[in-house]
Amino acid sequence: MKRFALLGAGRIGSMHASLISASENASLVYVFDSHQPSATALAEKYDATAVDTIDIILKDDSIDALLIATSTDTHVDFIIQGALAGKAILCEKPIDLSTKRVDDCWQEIRNCKVPIQIGFNRRFDPTHASLQQQLKDGEVGDLQQLVITSRDPDIAPVEYLRHSGGIFRDMIIHDFDMLRFITGEEVTEVYAIGSTLISPELAEMNDVDSVMLTLKTTSGKLCHINGSRRCVYGYDQRIEAFGANGMLKSNNPRPNAVSKSTEKTTDSLSSLDPFFIERYQQAYKAQLDSFITALQNGSSPVPSFLDGMKAQQLADAAQQSLESGMPVFL
Amino acid sequence: MKRFALLGAGRIGSMHASLISASENASLVYVFDSHQPSATALAEKYDATAVDTIDIILKDDSIDALLIATSTDTHVDFIIQGALAGKAILCEKPIDLSTKRVDDCWQEIRNCKVPIQIGFNRRFDPTHASLQQQLKDGEVGDLQQLVITSRDPDIAPVEYLRHSGGIFRDMIIHDFDMLRFITGEEVTEVYAIGSTLISPELAEMNDVDSVMLTLKTTSGKLCHINGSRRCVYGYDQRIEAFGANGMLKSNNPRPNAVSKSTEKTTDSLSSLDPFFIERYQQAYKAQLDSFITALQNGSSPVPSFLDGMKAQQLADAAQQSLESGMPVFL
Amino acid sequence: MKRFALLGAGRIGSMHASLISASENASLVYVFDSHQPSATALAEKYDATAVDTIDIILKDDSIDALLIATSTDTHVDFIIQGALAGKAILCEKPIDLSTKRVDDCWQEIRNCKVPIQIGFNRRFDPTHASLQQQLKDGEVGDLQQLVITSRDPDIAPVEYLRHSGGIFRDMIIHDFDMLRFITGEEVTEVYAIGSTLISPELAEMNDVDSVMLTLKTTSGKLCHINGSRRCVYGYDQRIEAFGANGMLKSNNPRPNAVSKSTEKTTDSLSSLDPFFIERYQQAYKAQLDSFITALQNGSSPVPSFLDGMKAQQLADAAQQSLESGMPVFL
Amino acid sequence: MKRFALLGAGRIGSMHASLISASENASLVYVFDSHQPSATALAEKYDATAVDTIDIILKDDSIDALLIATSTDTHVDFIIQGALAGKAILCEKPIDLSTKRVDDCWQEIRNCKVPIQIGFNRRFDPTHASLQQQLKDGEVGDLQQLVITSRDPDIAPVEYLRHSGGIFRDMIIHDFDMLRFITGEEVTEVYAIGSTLISPELAEMNDVDSVMLTLKTTSGKLCHINGSRRCVYGYDQRIEAFGANGMLKSNNPRPNAVSKSTEKTTDSLSSLDPFFIERYQQAYKAQLDSFITALQNGSSPVPSFLDGMKAQQLADAAQQSLESGMPVFL
Repeated sequence: MKRFALLGAGRIGSMHASLISASENASLVYVFDSHQPSATALAEKYDATAVDTIDIILKDDSIDALLIATSTDTHVDFIIQGALAGKAILCEKPIDLSTKRVDDCWQEIRNCKVPIQIGFNRRFDPTHASLQQQLKDGEVGDLQQLVITSRDPDIAPVEYLRHSGGIFRDMIIHDFDMLRFITGEEVTEVYAIGSTLISPELAEMNDVDSVMLTLKTTSGKLCHINGSRRCVYGYDQRIEAFGANGMLKSNNPRPNAVSKSTEKTTDSLSSLDPFFIERYQQAYKAQLDSFITALQNGSSPVPSFLDGMKAQQLADAAQQSLESGMPVFL
Repeated sequence: MKRFALLGAGRIGSMHASLISASENASLVYVFDSHQPSATALAEKYDATAVDTIDIILKDDSIDALLIATSTDTHVDFIIQGALAGKAILCEKPIDLSTKRVDDCWQEIRNCKVPIQIGFNRRFDPTHASLQQQLKDGEVGDLQQLVITSRDPDIAPVEYLRHSGGIFRDMIIHDFDMLRFITGEEVTEVYAIGSTLISPELAEMNDVDSVMLTLKTTSGKLCHINGSRRCVYGYDQRIEAFGANGMLKSNNPRPNAVSKSTEKTTDSLSSLDPFFIERYQQAYKAQLDSFITALQNGSSPVPSFLDGMKAQQLADAAQQSLESGMPVFL
Repeated sequence: MKRFALLGAGRIGSMHASLISASENASLVYVFDSHQPSATALAEKYDATAVDTIDIILKDDSIDALLIATSTDTHVDFIIQGALAGKAILCEKPIDLSTKRVDDCWQEIRNCKVPIQIGFNRRFDPTHASLQQQLKDGEVGDLQQLVITSRDPDIAPVEYLRHSGGIFRDMIIHDFDMLRFITGEEVTEVYAIGSTLISPELAEMNDVDSVMLTLKTTSGKLCHINGSRRCVYGYDQRIEAFGANGMLKSNNPRPNAVSKSTEKTTDSLSSLDPFFIERYQQAYKAQLDSFITALQNGSSPVPSFLDGMKAQQLADAAQQSLESGMPVFL
Repeated sequence: MKRFALLGAGRIGSMHASLISASENASLVYVFDSHQPSATALAEKYDATAVDTIDIILKDDSIDALLIATSTDTHVDFIIQGALAGKAILCEKPIDLSTKRVDDCWQEIRNCKVPIQIGFNRRFDPTHASLQQQLKDGEVGDLQQLVITSRDPDIAPVEYLRHSGGIFRDMIIHDFDMLRFITGEEVTEVYAIGSTLISPELAEMNDVDSVMLTLKTTSGKLCHINGSRRCVYGYDQRIEAFGANGMLKSNNPRPNAVSKSTEKTTDSLSSLDPFFIERYQQAYKAQLDSFITALQNGSSPVPSFLDGMKAQQLADAAQQSLESGMPVFL
């Protein structure tokens, strides 16, 4: 039974609290949030202790792991403090919006030898994970081309977007990780174009709402990522992996499997899941299980801090390509 | 090059004229219709000769085949006259509404040795035919259960229905033929229930608009047929064949392969084909080709006159079951 | 927080124990099983108390509800004892294999006024439930025809089948309940045919492994049920509801949404769920939630004891039809 | 009735001969091919006259139109000769591998005022055309992103590839035309990457077998094209159009609509069409009809010579981007 402290009692934090609490191999001991009432409410719900400083947590030797779900700008500090205190860490993505700060963080903690996992939950989605496994098992031969579709249901509020680090660091970073996860290779070049087709306010922030990227990996595999901040038919998350002997598609699952035929259209499926909490519900659970299993086995949890750093670097390269209009070679 | 005379210049007749004319192995020589202007117009379109009596056709030794597409009550007479004159015959289904008359017809022509094919066009549909072939090839093992869905887009005018012979002889007869085609067996029992859920006028004609049948074949295979006179999403024609090692579905093809996702529904397909002329366009062509090939090879064309008679007997049995409320054993 | 005693610590019982334990509104207090080690093991896993007699449970006033998951022949006794002791009851289907015993049970408990729910879990499946709701909401107009497909992945051991009560009481009973749930009507006639196409041993037990049924409801809606004891591609559970303005299909969900294209086939989906525990995982959870909500609200839980009795009567009628070869009118 | 001369009696030429011959509005009068026996054989099959020089055709005032299906390097000469002789022209793509020669050709013929249509047959495919029409009708709002998949079933012989002009001018040129057809806009930038993942011999020709392109149009719409010279599951031709209010997909049609479920996979569809002759059969017919209709109406046929030139320029830009590693701005 691994004992957890949860940092962050917002929407994502609440979901993690529920998962830790329901796990047969974990218990939720502390909840920290800079907004004290949130911490208290969540702690009460799951019979945990609310704290207003993480010092208590760091000094409590019975605590095995921190789950960091606070705002992005606090991640690095909490990771460093946790690592130095010898706690295992499961930290929400991204590590930080600044790759420089991520690097600095790494320098501070690299000798700590605590298990650190970054919250790229999509690796644990049954559908994406099955695609990756089948590819690895050679079911369609060597991968040649990868097409990732990544569309959010709706654009976030302008105020959020202003501090999001841009579409690549905030949103497409997940897809950079999926690309690395599925190809099993590093990216050698990134080219990104974008447009503001949805929210004109983004232009002044040097940001865009619609992007298309081209990437190439070490062995010459070709990758496309298309992304949009608004998709009226739901949270559209698909992957198409084209191999020498066939093709695998990670299609959108549906909340239910009803289809409808009426005068105008036939065999219509239901709407997609509204957003990531619903779509990746099983993935979040499997991610936690995987982290706990690594702790139990003493193995290194994956995706690692370095995986988080690599995705970050790809986001930076994409941003640079978007701004310069030129491909970036890595 | 086989020389054809077409009897009947209505909607179906026109389609057959176009197919004969486009065939590289056939030519349309005569068009007969009791309504002279129809015959003339169609004959002109395809450089054929319009006639107002079939005697000219029967006496013309250059004519190889009659394609009979006149009204049902004339089929038997034309088949007998054609057969006695030594013409090959491709006759639209049903042979006649009265099984007695079909029997009598058979007695008259059975010694004629002319090739006779009945227009159960669905046997030649690429999708249904592929299902039958795969089943025969053992792709899903021995057939155990068969489910046939047969829904017309809309109910015919009451006046037509009054002379249609009832839903089994007029419409479901095609499905009886498909059942025999796919199972390769004869039916030993038929049970039919029906309701007038669409057109109350049918009740007074001893007819129904919605039917469900259960049939059993010689070896104990179980079959369901469901049929409806009105289906708002188009002409719904499906077959599901459940075997010891898997299942084959003959799904509805679509006029095009576009799918649409909008706020309410996702991956919606287009409407189905509106009706049989569109749905079975390829089947009608393949049916003609098959008939011509049989003539060229001197082989017996299929489905045969006896196939037509067997489907008729099943329609009679279904009608009897509907009226008695009891299964009919054959 | 509702306090539960679980009767039965077998495969289904274990699943229920896990669901009760994970529920935020329930706690598992007792586990009873006639096989003491099973009770002990399961009780330990969930911090409950193992008992070797249900008397302790019945006398414990803190217990709100019994979840009965013992062997079928014990259901009636436990229902009666529980009801007389004032416990709410969630009992696995079927109530009993003998409709006579079910009737007798009803006479004993009908005045007890304890909430009783029968475990027709499929009503709570997100897909089937969505179909039922959309139908109720008029999305495809008045229902006219219903086609239910119900195929188990593989045939049960002969010894099990010998005491199963036959395919209708053991397996198709779920579909009878679905039919009543979806049509919202009672059945007026049942006709059933069957064959032993899979397991010849069944013939001597008056049982069959492949069945097809035709049913008609009060208002004349037509229903087909097809069932098989073995389906090599998995647990095949589908419903097709044909209405005046369209059609709804409850398709099989898949464990994941990957599709594969290779040289021979394209867009292949994954296998179906292996069996009911996996397929109806969400349904079992929702069923428990619904029961607890009814207890909390003081409303009558659904499906009720009488729903269980009605499904039983349909199973009897189907068996009678199978044996007599005649339709049975209710 | 428009009178045609066919130039080229190879595989494509034969198909065009069959279509002209079957058309109710066209007749095939001459067949020219530099390989005389091919011309003779084809001409005989369709009751046309074989010629070994196009002079006879050009001088025959009864001839309305040339259908040019000879090898690419002869297109420009035949277009010029035909245009100067006042013949309408339907010419297979590409006009020429050299944009310079295309330009020169245009200078020579621009004042001829003969109707010229280039054989971008895919515009006439029922599925692609339906997508374009629905988009134009606003069914999914303003287009934002376009993803085109274009995969040939297998790589052409090395000798063919050597003279093909490279993958962009030979193969992806169709997709450039589709992009212009669907967006209704011109491209402002092209970025292309490629790899030789299938046929290493291509490297020495400065050619590749796997490509991914990013393109941007005048209004900022973003487009991805992925292409491969080999696709084991058939001829994979899809388009995904993502708009402000939804998404349209042009999926691959299938030769038949059977799906199969077996132990390993479920609802598998049949293989795709083997190649363009089968896949675009209806499109080739509709293309010819559209050309004939334009001749009858005196309207300008589409896609025009200039459409052919624009696609060519995009192919050049893509080749330049591939070689330079930099985007090309137009």
